[in-house]
Amino acid sequence: MKILDGKNLSNIIKQEIKESVGVRLSLGLKKPHLAAIIVGDDGASLTYVGSKVRSCEEVGFESTLIQLEKSISENDLLYQIEKLNKNSNIDGYIVQLPLPKHINEEKILLSVDPVKDVDGFHPTNFGRMVLELPSFIPATPYGIMEMLKRYDIKTSGKKCLVIGRSNIVGRPISILMSQKGSYGNATVTVAHSRTKNIKELCLEADIIISALGIPEFIKEDMVKKGVVVIDVGITRILDKTALKGYVIKGDVDYKNVSKKSSYITPVPGGVGPMTIAMLLKNTLKACQKKD
Amino acid sequence: MKILDGKNLSNIIKQEIKESVGVRLSLGLKKPHLAAIIVGDDGASLTYVGSKVRSCEEVGFESTLIQLEKSISENDLLYQIEKLNKNSNIDGYIVQLPLPKHINEEKILLSVDPVKDVDGFHPTNFGRMVLELPSFIPATPYGIMEMLKRYDIKTSGKKCLVIGRSNIVGRPISILMSQKGSYGNATVTVAHSRTKNIKELCLEADIIISALGIPEFIKEDMVKKGVVVIDVGITRILDKTALKGYVIKGDVDYKNVSKKSSYITPVPGGVGPMTIAMLLKNTLKACQKKD
Repeated sequence: MKILDGKNLSNIIKQEIKESVGVRLSLGLKKPHLAAIIVGDDGASLTYVGSKVRSCEEVGFESTLIQLEKSISENDLLYQIEKLNKNSNIDGYIVQLPLPKHINEEKILLSVDPVKDVDGFHPTNFGRMVLELPSFIPATPYGIMEMLKRYDIKTSGKKCLVIGRSNIVGRPISILMSQKGSYGNATVTVAHSRTKNIKELCLEADIIISALGIPEFIKEDMVKKGVVVIDVGITRILDKTALKGYVIKGDVDYKNVSKKSSYITPVPGGVGPMTIAMLLKNTLKACQKKD
Repeated sequence: MKILDGKNLSNIIKQEIKESVGVRLSLGLKKPHLAAIIVGDDGASLTYVGSKVRSCEEVGFESTLIQLEKSISENDLLYQIEKLNKNSNIDGYIVQLPLPKHINEEKILLSVDPVKDVDGFHPTNFGRMVLELPSFIPATPYGIMEMLKRYDIKTSGKKCLVIGRSNIVGRPISILMSQKGSYGNATVTVAHSRTKNIKELCLEADIIISALGIPEFIKEDMVKKGVVVIDVGITRILDKTALKGYVIKGDVDYKNVSKKSSYITPVPGGVGPMTIAMLLKNTLKACQKKD
């Protein structure tokens, strides 16, 4: 069993990005600049955005955090987005989800200029990804693909089960894994809430990518020996004995499933850090396109 | 065994479209107008475009056929497309594929205005479809979904095998079948040239959608009893004894597979006519959006 160490790998990628920034500066080119909009004060969202901003500093990016009141109107938020679209100093930006209920999330995401959409959530980027044209690939699936590549995990012709069909993880990773390419070409099945016999599907899979959000759903008796397990689940479970008051659990019963796996991602320290690294990579690309 | 009669169903849909056109005219609204660009004189392409134009007449649409020399330059073709984009009388148009080799097909498809892209091949439409936003759905997968709906075939929780991962059929139908909705919610697997044990996958499937292009690839011993079979394959096989000099074969050994199926599409007369009906439906929608 080998651990897919997303923390270590993301540090390597961040180091590479940092070097690219160094080269840019030595050539007199601008620093990449990532902005993040956050609406309200949800704890988890603040943590995520905070760590994105810190990562920008690590790699030598400029960053701008725009924190808006939970009560902001949709129009005022659209105005902020329009300002980011027009600001030529900003290469890419993200709107941290979820947004408060009075704001139409779809309308907001559609208003992001696709050339600055480093989260890859705009339909134009999504469509380009599916049609195999250059695009911003959403950071989580992009991070998973990068992980498979860097660990040189063979995927061609393998049975891959993707659990979850969200637009952020399940849908895009299922498409990427099934496309042509050295780390694609898998035979992919997408499972979701209406799927029957999930255990049977898991047992047949050579690669399981789980983005379900149910802690420790995947047990030892649900996987075959030698399986590759990518755990995208991140659930906070309240735990008064823990330092932060909660612990993070993945979709996989790591302790027991890891015994049967050839490769497995831990939670935390697996897919999570890769997501941030790939967001930075998308921002670097957005900046390079403008050179 | 029940035949999914695409010819009959497409006639019903065309009749409905014709009635909508009648209502439009009685309200003083314009006739929908579909244009088609064809480059060169490939026999099959001329046949397809010809039948699209004839169908326009059947339902009371205006139609324009733009036939261009095989030797046309990419720039001249882009100029023709720009003219169609600007022509407010034209609601939608298609560029018949394939294009001659000296023309960059991708560049051409990207130049089609998404609001007139009734083939649904532009990344913006594709992305919107995947993200479940209103869009033009490519006509063949749209036709398959409509067929399942009109025949009220239950798909939720069913195992669906899609054979082929093309951007025109395999990829979009695999996504649509797996999305939420009354005739989606299937557990979809996408098989392709790198897939191993295709027979085994076929035998497990409740629904098989084949867009492979290999005549009679799917045999009786590859399907389970009660399977629903949608055959998207259309291959012309030279046959001097046939009236046209060729016969059309699907991916499925119809004669024998039909004995085990609950529903099956014939070739011809299955998915083919549905494709044209749905192209007309997309054109009607494009026209209605402008009202």
